[in-house]
Amino acid sequence: MQADQNATDAQTPDHVLSLSQALLLPRIVIEDTQPAIDGGQFAVKAIVGQSITVSTKVYADGHDKMAVVLRWHEAGSDTWHSTSMRELGNDSWEAELVIDSVGTHAYCIDAWIDQFASYRYELEKKYAAGVTIELELEEGRVHLEQAAARSQDTLARQLRQLHDELQGLDQDAKVALLLQRDTQALMSLADHRAFLCSSIEYALDVERELAQFASWYELFPRSITDDKARHGTFNDVHSRLPMIRDMNFDVLYFPPIHPIGRAHRKGPNNSLTAGPDDPGSPYAIGSAEGGHDAIHPQLGTREDFRNLVAAAAEHGLEIALDFAIQCSQDHLWLKEHPGWFSWRPDGTIRYAENPPKKYQDIVNVDFYAADAVPGLWTELRDVVWGWVEEGVKIFRVDNPHTKPLPFWQWLIADIRSKDPSVMFLAEAFTKPAMMARLGKVGYSQSYTYFTWRNTKPELTTYFTQLNQAPWAHCYRPNFFVNTPDINPFFLHDSGRAGFLIRAALATMGSGLWGMYSGFELCESAPIPGKEEYLDSEKYEIRPRDYTAPGNIIAEIAQLNRIRRQNPALQTHLGVEFFQCYNDNILYFGKRTADRSNYVLVAVNLDPRNVQEAHFELPLWELGLDDDAATNGEDLMTGHRWTWHGKTQFMRIDPGYQPFGIWRITRVQP
Amino acid sequence: MQADQNATDAQTPDHVLSLSQALLLPRIVIEDTQPAIDGGQFAVKAIVGQSITVSTKVYADGHDKMAVVLRWHEAGSDTWHSTSMRELGNDSWEAELVIDSVGTHAYCIDAWIDQFASYRYELEKKYAAGVTIELELEEGRVHLEQAAARSQDTLARQLRQLHDELQGLDQDAKVALLLQRDTQALMSLADHRAFLCSSIEYALDVERELAQFASWYELFPRSITDDKARHGTFNDVHSRLPMIRDMNFDVLYFPPIHPIGRAHRKGPNNSLTAGPDDPGSPYAIGSAEGGHDAIHPQLGTREDFRNLVAAAAEHGLEIALDFAIQCSQDHLWLKEHPGWFSWRPDGTIRYAENPPKKYQDIVNVDFYAADAVPGLWTELRDVVWGWVEEGVKIFRVDNPHTKPLPFWQWLIADIRSKDPSVMFLAEAFTKPAMMARLGKVGYSQSYTYFTWRNTKPELTTYFTQLNQAPWAHCYRPNFFVNTPDINPFFLHDSGRAGFLIRAALATMGSGLWGMYSGFELCESAPIPGKEEYLDSEKYEIRPRDYTAPGNIIAEIAQLNRIRRQNPALQTHLGVEFFQCYNDNILYFGKRTADRSNYVLVAVNLDPRNVQEAHFELPLWELGLDDDAATNGEDLMTGHRWTWHGKTQFMRIDPGYQPFGIWRITRVQP
Repeated sequence: MQADQNATDAQTPDHVLSLSQALLLPRIVIEDTQPAIDGGQFAVKAIVGQSITVSTKVYADGHDKMAVVLRWHEAGSDTWHSTSMRELGNDSWEAELVIDSVGTHAYCIDAWIDQFASYRYELEKKYAAGVTIELELEEGRVHLEQAAARSQDTLARQLRQLHDELQGLDQDAKVALLLQRDTQALMSLADHRAFLCSSIEYALDVERELAQFASWYELFPRSITDDKARHGTFNDVHSRLPMIRDMNFDVLYFPPIHPIGRAHRKGPNNSLTAGPDDPGSPYAIGSAEGGHDAIHPQLGTREDFRNLVAAAAEHGLEIALDFAIQCSQDHLWLKEHPGWFSWRPDGTIRYAENPPKKYQDIVNVDFYAADAVPGLWTELRDVVWGWVEEGVKIFRVDNPHTKPLPFWQWLIADIRSKDPSVMFLAEAFTKPAMMARLGKVGYSQSYTYFTWRNTKPELTTYFTQLNQAPWAHCYRPNFFVNTPDINPFFLHDSGRAGFLIRAALATMGSGLWGMYSGFELCESAPIPGKEEYLDSEKYEIRPRDYTAPGNIIAEIAQLNRIRRQNPALQTHLGVEFFQCYNDNILYFGKRTADRSNYVLVAVNLDPRNVQEAHFELPLWELGLDDDAATNGEDLMTGHRWTWHGKTQFMRIDPGYQPFGIWRITRVQP
Repeated sequence: MQADQNATDAQTPDHVLSLSQALLLPRIVIEDTQPAIDGGQFAVKAIVGQSITVSTKVYADGHDKMAVVLRWHEAGSDTWHSTSMRELGNDSWEAELVIDSVGTHAYCIDAWIDQFASYRYELEKKYAAGVTIELELEEGRVHLEQAAARSQDTLARQLRQLHDELQGLDQDAKVALLLQRDTQALMSLADHRAFLCSSIEYALDVERELAQFASWYELFPRSITDDKARHGTFNDVHSRLPMIRDMNFDVLYFPPIHPIGRAHRKGPNNSLTAGPDDPGSPYAIGSAEGGHDAIHPQLGTREDFRNLVAAAAEHGLEIALDFAIQCSQDHLWLKEHPGWFSWRPDGTIRYAENPPKKYQDIVNVDFYAADAVPGLWTELRDVVWGWVEEGVKIFRVDNPHTKPLPFWQWLIADIRSKDPSVMFLAEAFTKPAMMARLGKVGYSQSYTYFTWRNTKPELTTYFTQLNQAPWAHCYRPNFFVNTPDINPFFLHDSGRAGFLIRAALATMGSGLWGMYSGFELCESAPIPGKEEYLDSEKYEIRPRDYTAPGNIIAEIAQLNRIRRQNPALQTHLGVEFFQCYNDNILYFGKRTADRSNYVLVAVNLDPRNVQEAHFELPLWELGLDDDAATNGEDLMTGHRWTWHGKTQFMRIDPGYQPFGIWRITRVQP
């Protein structure tokens, strides 16, 4: 027979499937396995301890019964866990998976034909139909005999015992023995997994909860001073910690803390010449005092930094640092590693641009320069690792989309293989494909288009998209309401209500949100016509009065508290929009998969006018009739009431509070 | 440097991306390439000479300009064709592809960074902004110099000439020279395709037009007789050809034409005992007179068959044969190849079942029996090839979903590699995943759920789904209105109108449709309560009067004629549903991609009552305002009129004709 096969193969052109190749293809199809990114090319994002629903389709020719098992392990470990999958009909199977440690894991699916289950199904049907089953009973005996023969020790003995017992029984008793649960269990153990087929392994990047649920607060340490003339220090930041803790933030993020270059230093408002006392942009990294691994002397010592990290931790705050690969013209790399840069014909380096913005004080390394590989790559990895060793586990990465994707894929994997608690936030504002790809190559989370989504259709579309594949599996949005670079148009003239609107949207819309200091004081003075701050803190020291009247500190504290108390709000997933008959009111539900925590959010997007609307309570999602009564609770005020029926009415006055956040629960009988 | 890299690699655990591996990853991302099935695992279906739109996303770090090219070739050929792709924005690219021969082809996408285009973009912007561009001009000179250096012969000479010319010019002239079209063309030719990245190859299964557009007519040759007592023959079928041609059918399909077994032969109405003159089911294949490669003696000789194939061709009809792998108990294989079957403990073979149907006259080969590989596989392939050599290029395959998928993948590839005009129709009625998979492994087309889709929502959902991925790329639906096995409930009591409704839906819904003889005579007598024909032709000879009153022969002829005259109707793709305010009227458009052929179809799904509705003409799809005038033409009657505006009114009387088919065209100015 083998000869036939080879003869047939010999006639087959190379591009045509040969008989030998076809005979190696699996009988069983395993397909549409989810979650998966790009067919398994990249790891799916997951959170330690949180359930992942794995689904797949399994089928083969014929009508046999299938056994389908989900298996998973930690990358590099030989220890596999497994669980049977549930059959949902139409060839679909599902199982829940909970990973209990951070780091890379992988899952796969095994499927085989459960021949004894197929046999039992036939037997049961025929027995019930009263047709003759003599042959079927003999086949059952052969099943037991063969199973015993391929088993060992106790199992073999038990199966042989069953087999012998069967012989002496009458027909009804034989059927009962063959169909009983114990027989099934023993046959399962002895199953030889006919036609076993395994899917590829799908990687899971399991991170700690902070990767999905965290409130970020950004400040410039040098601005923590009473006097613009006195450079703030790490030690000064200690005084801010209680207030930031009381606003219920989790992450305290600093722009670069490294020595700042002198050459081409920017003056106030991005002017091209700096005075002798102008501090310069912290993004112009590197001077004679050191580069990316050093601390700007005016901020303090390494010891001061360590103390601040420790003090922040005592306030429940983790420090996030900025990883901005660019250099000032004074960076030592220009002299020590000229081969890492791209030099122009006149011996200069092109300064950085992110059109239309120009950064005359900054030059970029060139990842494609002749000598950049591997020295630049390992140097940057070592920079990051150095800060990890200082206790920093969160990095906000500046403009990652202008650096090679394989570089990030390697650096993030390398760092996280040594410390899987480390997380990277991508500060990419670019086209959607690249935004998603950065998540795929390893970024834990990303900046977003949120700042430019203001209307009801814009927000509905954006929130919905982030809940769908591929975004839901690869991209965690961190909704920053402002940054030192982004002073959103919407806030320029919408007043305190405008800030509350954006704070409510960010805190309720995603598990991850962030604000840059000044937002709580409703600062919004722009460079006229631009989305930039006047007197930008990037170029000057800006002391602030954090108790200034009109601030929204109490509201931010309460919004963050509500988030901590409601699991539904600890992710951007689980959003659904419901009917609300007013185009100025965005109304949506955030709910856990089991609906045990269900929060309704209504935001009046119009900061100037009272808006009213009839709206629908999603009673059907709670398994209730349209006329059911439900408990409502205002999570901002604690007020409670009973709703009767599905259609309700709201009135939102932005002069008071431009949003409502209500928890809905079933009335307990 | 190499040493560093190895040192770094050595520390990397196996499951973590190493530096060496990362450095091999491409800079440029090519993703979301369409059409593709399961990431390129299977061939996408295409029709010779018909345009395929290929789309992809291409991007990389940074802001460089990309060059993106679509390449394709015939499988096994070294000759590649290529075309530039169009940039659509947001990293999307698109191109049209037309393959001009049947058989397997493949396409892929190449992308690289067009460094000179990036340079020109910069130069143009800076020149326009009036900033100093001395360095840019020098960089331009270097571009020309390097391009000349890496080129040969004429191209090198021309580039060197440009380079030298540049030197003597003033600034404006230099810019003009660097930006001129000729320079761009030469630089394109000299492009060294920096960071070239190629996608995988995506296979295309290119078939002849009949794979997508064909009307099938099924008959039992033995019933072409005036007298139930006289077995019809191939020679008798000649008399039917003109009438089938006049109904504008393309394919004439016969159930199995092989010798019929005697053992357990079925009698009329599937009874378990046959009389001596009962012809038996043609699906009980094989007797002492031969098996799958033989002709049932009562039908005629091999010569008769050849004559019929030739005569059919003269009438524009292609013969399709049934490939039904099952055997009667008299099939020679049982004796010659007992190892191809699965024997029960008592030495019998289990008869075939397709629950709830029982086929006591039929046994199945067992593809998983010990001796089935490769003998059974090659024997079956040889059976098919034998009929191909007789001029049969179309096979309807019985129950393919109960045979191994790899078997089909191999058999179809094997046959089509020798004759790519051969096509296979899958008679699978099973769950959706398997239906799609059969298309993926090579079936040209498939039976469908059409027969069980009757209401407006059912039909809308089904037609729409077939137009979407993955179905649109892997599955061509052949809408059979009835088969010898399916006498649809809807037809039992809906009368002539019911038959016209289903004929209109099938002919207008898909490029492929089929009917089994008797449909045109509105035959519908069922076995009470079952979707089966009373006195089924599978078990007895059924002469018919094809001129019986009340037939719908004229309507079928006209429906098929309309299909031939309107390209939009020659595929199931290109359907769109529009507003029609009556749940009993299905109203949709079928249109070519360029909208040059635009057909509107309205079917009154209620065979008993007149239905009326306001409906919308899709003027927006024709680029017209809501108040525009359009030409309407009734394709059944030839009547013409002018529609004014978007909203129109229809009244459909099933007693007259339960559907309307209208071509809409713009009024020429």
